Amino acid sequence: MTAVDISRFIDDLATQSGQAIMPFFRSALTAEDKSDGRDFDPVTEADRAGEAVMRHMIKTTFPDHGITGEEFADENAEAEYVWVLDPIDGTKAFISGLPLWGTLIGLTHRGSPTYGLMHQPFTGERFAGDGRTAHYRGPAGERSLATRPCASLTEATISATTPQMFSGKTLEAYRRVESACRMHRYGCDCYAYCMLAAGHMDLVIETGLKPCDILPLIPIVTGAGGIVTDWQGNPVTGGGNVVAAGDPRVHAMALKALSA
Amino acid sequence: MTAVDISRFIDDLATQSGQAIMPFFRSALTAEDKSDGRDFDPVTEADRAGEAVMRHMIKTTFPDHGITGEEFADENAEAEYVWVLDPIDGTKAFISGLPLWGTLIGLTHRGSPTYGLMHQPFTGERFAGDGRTAHYRGPAGERSLATRPCASLTEATISATTPQMFSGKTLEAYRRVESACRMHRYGCDCYAYCMLAAGHMDLVIETGLKPCDILPLIPIVTGAGGIVTDWQGNPVTGGGNVVAAGDPRVHAMALKALSA
Repeated sequence: MTAVDISRFIDDLATQSGQAIMPFFRSALTAEDKSDGRDFDPVTEADRAGEAVMRHMIKTTFPDHGITGEEFADENAEAEYVWVLDPIDGTKAFISGLPLWGTLIGLTHRGSPTYGLMHQPFTGERFAGDGRTAHYRGPAGERSLATRPCASLTEATISATTPQMFSGKTLEAYRRVESACRMHRYGCDCYAYCMLAAGHMDLVIETGLKPCDILPLIPIVTGAGGIVTDWQGNPVTGGGNVVAAGDPRVHAMALKALSA
Repeated sequence: MTAVDISRFIDDLATQSGQAIMPFFRSALTAEDKSDGRDFDPVTEADRAGEAVMRHMIKTTFPDHGITGEEFADENAEAEYVWVLDPIDGTKAFISGLPLWGTLIGLTHRGSPTYGLMHQPFTGERFAGDGRTAHYRGPAGERSLATRPCASLTEATISATTPQMFSGKTLEAYRRVESACRMHRYGCDCYAYCMLAAGHMDLVIETGLKPCDILPLIPIVTGAGGIVTDWQGNPVTGGGNVVAAGDPRVHAMALKALSA
């Protein structure tokens, strides 16, 4: 399995899952609530169709690999290589017609995220990374991704999918950081991490993430020169609390403010 | 001036302003603060370039018409026909790389909004309306816009650009509505009104809007079957507090909750 092979294969996964998902975007959908009424977490036919096509391709091409995803049970999750799939990260954006959801495709090697791709099929954009480099392909062409310098919180643009993902002490901690920042943006899901990798934002702070929400994004952010940790500065290996930053200086300041 | 003429001319305004604006999107920009440090309200070269090209086209083609816009002083604002221009509605989204900003082009006749267009040049989408009909043109084709039925707040998806646009009593009022809704989305600016017109969202509630933020959107929403008023149910002729709804039933419930 060479680097070229894997990057082509992941591109194929994105293309095929995009074709399965797109007929459902901005069409009448039946959203099903899988969270027992606690919160509105729509699962769509699109989600299942996108993940099913990727699982089929992976099992056919790499029968020894494991798969963990949003929609179906884990398969061979103790394998050396495990695929981490989220066919529609940002289902609320998806069912609201907004083009900020994305298909997340990650590959872990012995638990470490080694390759990740975010595909936004409506805008035709792909953000990919392997932890050392990251690149963008979209309607206007192809380029390397690089985070931008940001020396302090007062210069930073921060993003979280919604402030309502936080409560109690995590809300206080998030507010300490956000209130020190120059600007905030909500509603971006995976798109925020990609804008950080592309040098348009500086910080993403979130909580309650599932592994498939974040593991595929890590090699993109780090490949672009950024850093992703939990709120204590430890590597993210599962989900939970996440701080992504484009510049280590603003990352350190965010960790300090979160723990103040 | 026939309907065909005006709709073609507005399409040309969108095309030309889009060409002026797009070179600045996702490029390094110098954002200038015009709000005396009270809030971060970036004005970009793109804003000015987009509005300048539209003003030039309007003055050449319709020398008797007035123009009011975001970036330059009013011209002949007492004319029978007045153009209302916002070259980049959603400047914060723009400088964060997010494709949810839009160019707003409105035409008022004796103060009433009679035609409006929202152009998103990155996604290549146009949403247009004349108060009786509304239509969409995008990468996947062209179609009529129609709001969706929504019988109650508990079924509704609500949007506001950010909850931080509200404070004190307006925040309490907004929260009364949002907490009764099924789902909320932040960060959409003009894009939210267009998703409402397209039947993907049900309510947009905002405050502190400028006339150019909302007047061009009204004929799109009403042309798709929706309703736009202030928080008391009166027509919106300037900016200020706005409630847009796709279904009159949910509009009535939102007004009631806002005034409770």
